Amino acid sequence: MIAEIISVGTELLMGQVLNTDAQYMARELAPAGVNVYHQVTVGDNPERLKDTLKTALGRADVVILSGGLGPTGDDLTKLVVADLLGLPMVRSPEAEQELYLRFSSFRNREMTPNNLRQADFPQGSTLLPNPNGTAQGCFVEQNGKTIVLLPGPPRELFPMFHDYVMPHLLKRAGHRLYTREIRIFGMGESSVEHAIRDLIEKQDNPTIAPYAKTGEVTLRVTARCQEEKEGELLVAPVVEEIESRLGDVVYSTNGESMPELLSRLMIEKNATLAVAESCTGGLLSSTFIDVPGSSTYFLEGMVVYSDSAKIRRLNVSNTILRQNGAVSAECAKEMAAGMCRTSGADYALATTGIAGPGGAKANKPVGLVYVALAGGDKVLVKKLNLTGDRKRVREMATLNALDMLRRLLMDLPQAE
Amino acid sequence: MIAEIISVGTELLMGQVLNTDAQYMARELAPAGVNVYHQVTVGDNPERLKDTLKTALGRADVVILSGGLGPTGDDLTKLVVADLLGLPMVRSPEAEQELYLRFSSFRNREMTPNNLRQADFPQGSTLLPNPNGTAQGCFVEQNGKTIVLLPGPPRELFPMFHDYVMPHLLKRAGHRLYTREIRIFGMGESSVEHAIRDLIEKQDNPTIAPYAKTGEVTLRVTARCQEEKEGELLVAPVVEEIESRLGDVVYSTNGESMPELLSRLMIEKNATLAVAESCTGGLLSSTFIDVPGSSTYFLEGMVVYSDSAKIRRLNVSNTILRQNGAVSAECAKEMAAGMCRTSGADYALATTGIAGPGGAKANKPVGLVYVALAGGDKVLVKKLNLTGDRKRVREMATLNALDMLRRLLMDLPQAE
Repeated sequence: MIAEIISVGTELLMGQVLNTDAQYMARELAPAGVNVYHQVTVGDNPERLKDTLKTALGRADVVILSGGLGPTGDDLTKLVVADLLGLPMVRSPEAEQELYLRFSSFRNREMTPNNLRQADFPQGSTLLPNPNGTAQGCFVEQNGKTIVLLPGPPRELFPMFHDYVMPHLLKRAGHRLYTREIRIFGMGESSVEHAIRDLIEKQDNPTIAPYAKTGEVTLRVTARCQEEKEGELLVAPVVEEIESRLGDVVYSTNGESMPELLSRLMIEKNATLAVAESCTGGLLSSTFIDVPGSSTYFLEGMVVYSDSAKIRRLNVSNTILRQNGAVSAECAKEMAAGMCRTSGADYALATTGIAGPGGAKANKPVGLVYVALAGGDKVLVKKLNLTGDRKRVREMATLNALDMLRRLLMDLPQAE
Repeated sequence: MIAEIISVGTELLMGQVLNTDAQYMARELAPAGVNVYHQVTVGDNPERLKDTLKTALGRADVVILSGGLGPTGDDLTKLVVADLLGLPMVRSPEAEQELYLRFSSFRNREMTPNNLRQADFPQGSTLLPNPNGTAQGCFVEQNGKTIVLLPGPPRELFPMFHDYVMPHLLKRAGHRLYTREIRIFGMGESSVEHAIRDLIEKQDNPTIAPYAKTGEVTLRVTARCQEEKEGELLVAPVVEEIESRLGDVVYSTNGESMPELLSRLMIEKNATLAVAESCTGGLLSSTFIDVPGSSTYFLEGMVVYSDSAKIRRLNVSNTILRQNGAVSAECAKEMAAGMCRTSGADYALATTGIAGPGGAKANKPVGLVYVALAGGDKVLVKKLNLTGDRKRVREMATLNALDMLRRLLMDLPQAE
């Protein structure tokens, strides 16, 4: 099956909005075996939209349009579709009732005649509910082609696409999908791809798709299947093979994020955590607290940015600050140990380093970071030489601290 | 002048990569008076790429292609352009030398014959240097049309587009650009647009473009001009008019971000800051420390997540925690005052609230946040009822805390 995505909106052509809709839909369609050969963005111009739609219908089985379903004069997508297919616009009583209901729940918005346009659809459309906005979507079928019309805002489009469009397309294609995500820290994207190149090259069902972000690689393994059980059986050996090749850089095979994993482990072990940060400056604490329920194990954090705060709050010794400096293995260890002691937590993480762009010294370049982990009566320390800008150095230092804790909690050897 | 953007890459069609290139270029082109009516994404397929390019050349003066300039067999963009224009591929000695030079600086990468393809260009091309990668870009001109070929990775494309493509297009268009950014906190996008609707509707030169992100609105005012001075004179009265209509929700008219502004003000006043966080959990400290040079004024931060940490570290009274609870105006005030006292800082910010999804109580819903600011002998406190998920509540609490500090430092009345 071939699909084409048409994003409608002058705000996209002007660069005022990033087109996350097209990526989201493409990412869902690919593993379903739906091929997308063209994505096109056009403005709120009926002639150009009509041309674009015509071209798409000439080369795709399914054309998905997003945007232009709103109540204003610029919102033309439904009219253009109806015009091209030679269908009259028909008001849906259900959609009209839904609109009145929705507007009655708004405090500050009046229902105007314009809004009623959102209840008009090309004749014969199948409507798609929108729990997150006033613009319902729809399917229109003609001559074996399917046209899908969706609202533009991502928080309306994503769930509508997931809940209604994908099931419809999968039904039409005669299969369903089963996906598992493998998450990796400590190995670059090209090394990961190199290690599993033969699996990627011979992939058919399941498919393997890599996604990279700062410091992390995710592999999405997706099978087309008739039953969930069948999908599980297709995906499991591939996940197992990848995990056995990559080793303990794989930290989850069920999509769990690193902070979620650590949160679960800490709660399972009934252990508590405290954090002392210099260069990461609150980012490490914030990463833990991002996960709901972190108050169960996270006692406290400190951003001991100045030398005086390091001394006063954590009893870092003056001698170490003078002789080794604040950016040193010794200081990181004292910070972690001091945090453990003063907070009463079972474990404490500490970071100190030079995030840049300023602050470098002769033997201490930008990107030099020490991460320490105290627990029981031991203090581990890791030296990092990070590249990139201030933001990346702080993010990578944070991720390395998380991975140190994971390795300790799971009895894995610490990474080099 | 009409331009068309063609993004080349199967990874875009599969949704593995978000197309930030197209947005970046569109955003630069719009205020320059270059109209973009179509953006198209195609894969690494020579036939489809050729068709797409042909269509684009039929309707645009300038066609900008990004991606597909690499050394592998998939990288076909230059070959397809040469084929369509009937031009031979010619090796550039300068580009070849540049490649050898660059590869000699890599530790782990060998120069292979494949890499030399990156020195081949359609005959008559003007080369565009790439300080951030091995793939140089180029212009090709034919029959009054300009084709621009750029590498796909954003960190290579953005500077190449800014430094070489825009100046070329502006020269061709016979003008230059002058831009100022107005930054707004505390007024929603639709209210901002409502307040300046007449200015937006009659805009021509300068143009006014709004961009919204969590809690903030940016207005970009851009004039087409011959000289910078002329641009300044065109833009200044519009910026002044907007500022006078919106009032003190405008926090900068020169693109300075809120943390940059606060950093500058703190350093100018030779004042120091400390931060005590509960629900924001390190995000507020991290926002200050994101700005280089923050060590000048930022003494320390604390994430006092547990009640015991609030008592032990900041002397929050047991009675207040028992009677009013940790999420209360009284607790926020004690946190800020305690942080000021124990750190010796001139100012201290504190946050406490319910970020959700759990933790709500009868009279304390998710989104209830108190922000306090201590300084001199006063402690201000602000109550917020925030909507959205955990991430948004924490971000909005952080932004409100920053704005409280701005208003105090600038002698502005606190927002309601």
